[in-house]
Amino acid sequence: MIETSCIIAQSGGPTAVINSSLLGVIDAAKKMNMKHIYGALNGIDGILNERIIDLKEESETELGYLKNTPSAALGSVRFHLKDYKTDPATYEKIYEVFKKLNIHYFFYIGGNDSMDTCHKVAEYFKQHSYDCKVIGIPKTIDNDLMGTDHTPGYGSSVKYVVNVLSEIYLDTHAYKKGRVTVVEIMGRNAGWLTASSVLTKVSNTPVDLIYVPEAPFDINQFLDKVKRIYDEKQKVLVAVSEGIKTKDGEYFLKSHMSNKTDSFGHMQLGGVGQVLSEIVSEKLSLPVRAIELNLPQRSSSHIASATDIEEAYNCGVYALNEAVKGETGKMVVMKRVGDYQIEYSLSDISKIANEVKMVPNEYITDELDYITDEFINYALPLIQGDITIPYENGIVRFARLKKDLIKL
Amino acid sequence: MIETSCIIAQSGGPTAVINSSLLGVIDAAKKMNMKHIYGALNGIDGILNERIIDLKEESETELGYLKNTPSAALGSVRFHLKDYKTDPATYEKIYEVFKKLNIHYFFYIGGNDSMDTCHKVAEYFKQHSYDCKVIGIPKTIDNDLMGTDHTPGYGSSVKYVVNVLSEIYLDTHAYKKGRVTVVEIMGRNAGWLTASSVLTKVSNTPVDLIYVPEAPFDINQFLDKVKRIYDEKQKVLVAVSEGIKTKDGEYFLKSHMSNKTDSFGHMQLGGVGQVLSEIVSEKLSLPVRAIELNLPQRSSSHIASATDIEEAYNCGVYALNEAVKGETGKMVVMKRVGDYQIEYSLSDISKIANEVKMVPNEYITDELDYITDEFINYALPLIQGDITIPYENGIVRFARLKKDLIKL
Repeated sequence: MIETSCIIAQSGGPTAVINSSLLGVIDAAKKMNMKHIYGALNGIDGILNERIIDLKEESETELGYLKNTPSAALGSVRFHLKDYKTDPATYEKIYEVFKKLNIHYFFYIGGNDSMDTCHKVAEYFKQHSYDCKVIGIPKTIDNDLMGTDHTPGYGSSVKYVVNVLSEIYLDTHAYKKGRVTVVEIMGRNAGWLTASSVLTKVSNTPVDLIYVPEAPFDINQFLDKVKRIYDEKQKVLVAVSEGIKTKDGEYFLKSHMSNKTDSFGHMQLGGVGQVLSEIVSEKLSLPVRAIELNLPQRSSSHIASATDIEEAYNCGVYALNEAVKGETGKMVVMKRVGDYQIEYSLSDISKIANEVKMVPNEYITDELDYITDEFINYALPLIQGDITIPYENGIVRFARLKKDLIKL
Repeated sequence: MIETSCIIAQSGGPTAVINSSLLGVIDAAKKMNMKHIYGALNGIDGILNERIIDLKEESETELGYLKNTPSAALGSVRFHLKDYKTDPATYEKIYEVFKKLNIHYFFYIGGNDSMDTCHKVAEYFKQHSYDCKVIGIPKTIDNDLMGTDHTPGYGSSVKYVVNVLSEIYLDTHAYKKGRVTVVEIMGRNAGWLTASSVLTKVSNTPVDLIYVPEAPFDINQFLDKVKRIYDEKQKVLVAVSEGIKTKDGEYFLKSHMSNKTDSFGHMQLGGVGQVLSEIVSEKLSLPVRAIELNLPQRSSSHIASATDIEEAYNCGVYALNEAVKGETGKMVVMKRVGDYQIEYSLSDISKIANEVKMVPNEYITDELDYITDEFINYALPLIQGDITIPYENGIVRFARLKKDLIKL
């Protein structure tokens, strides 16, 4: 029995497997006989506002469903923790709550911002000699965290995107009539998810063009390419990242919108996919359709990757075990070895926080509009593995936690 | 051995299970030892342009994958067959091709328009004493065909919509921050698919408002409701049919656009979901997001309903068997009996062609913004049943047909 307690929180954009990491920490903490396993609701916000639950009070059965529950079961938050010097009160509040609950382990599952929070909180505790181990657990469909082969959450999003693109391919090829289809994929800065659309080559339903934010986007070259492919086969399937940028590094969407002179709220409507479709229609007079994959990209537990679920879970287990061993101020990272195996280790969180891992140039073709086959070797293992989805009445059965707040 | 041959074609908007019906006809025709089992590419167009394949040349293994292949494996078409008097040449061409290939059974898998084609072709053959049995096999995610409890294709779309709505519910509830989310669902005239969003009550992830084309849409009442729900719980999830209409029977989208005075191509951007979101933002100043479910609604074989696949297949088998018995000019219909069992029968196609089955008033609540619980009893059985999706490399394995054209 460990006489102290731990607390877990989730942060940033939800994924299909962030709750698997949560379950990993819980299971490992139970195995260690940790006295209390607390969950903070809505990330750091739940600590600051004392909205905390006791995860041991939740039934094993419901917790089991966490592996198939998307979004953040504890609730999420977007919160930027200021420096201690600017905002000491926030740090002191965290300390006060932790002390009151005898919490000596803090696990934060999240992306860049959350790792920044981990780093600051860990430093604060060190400097104030409060013994609390802080470990970050990576989570983001964007796959843009440094120091790890990939991030939990990414594989499931890839699986959704690739399967839906394959289905869209078949759908758009059902007709003889030609059409350009522009599919907008999430990723404001890093193009990892959009790049994964190259996996459609594996299923023989390839997209024709792929545009990621890392490659400068030129609208005229785009139109030339679309025209050429359309002339050749009357079907053009384009995968485009929401965050594509011009050669000046400006978001294409913003640069395009600023050319518009109307003030009818036009700018609010539509993303990159729709804008590109409009331009194709205007300039090339081709039939065109925009599809924005939207939220389902990050929440499709119904087609989550088994590998991703397992790795997310393992990251949680590893975090707990290493914290108990005395590690702090670190994030769990995954290293790929051999054909495809994952080794878990820790990386200094100060090197990870606020950094963004971009798609390397070698994965982008010379014409800046496709992704190389090497990327397939990188991403394909991440969507493997059979998974049994628990359905109830034909709908995925999600965890239903009680989430009774404890009294502090 | 039946010394004559049959031909199968597909038409209209693809679904996740239209290929299961195709497989049903093929399997039943093989069982009957039908001499040739032809497939016309791109519906009636393939007959007119002699783009025809021999389905017996396809491997059993690949044909087996048809049950999990969305879109139309033979290709689809949107084609309105004119009356014989207006366009005799088209009818004569069909007759010429059928005679040359000794085709005496014609199966057309499609929606309203395709049933109209079946009806006209069947009448033409009768009047010209050519012995060709014509049977229509229903297919549409819109569920708007008369005479049948529901249509193959609908159940799988319902399953996708309900599961994705549940996932969106969890995703949008992850944050404390409030938000209105407007989800646009397919259905230009009939609201069956949008109505199915009431099934989210079953998974305890209910949408808040449901708008179908059958219920006149009032923008002010909509805004009032959104405001009231937002004030109460800061989260509003709206399911809206792309074809909602004003009390004058005009498409809301069209009526709204005609009020706009700009000429910046604004009208081209966005569907109903985006327009409503824009209005919510403008009039209520609430944070809002639009999600258009788009093509995946009709092509998501990765989450197809087992019941739907089976029924679509059975419709194909039944069509072949009844045609061989001598039936013609009819469409396969499904009758629900007992708790949930399906009896297959035929219905005179002239009563079905060009009719549209709307969502009955009794399913729509008095305030015109929700669907009654009775609808759950209607729709829930359609998404039941376990299904094993064949994955290959993490991507749904689709049928790869050779589709070698025969020489006429």
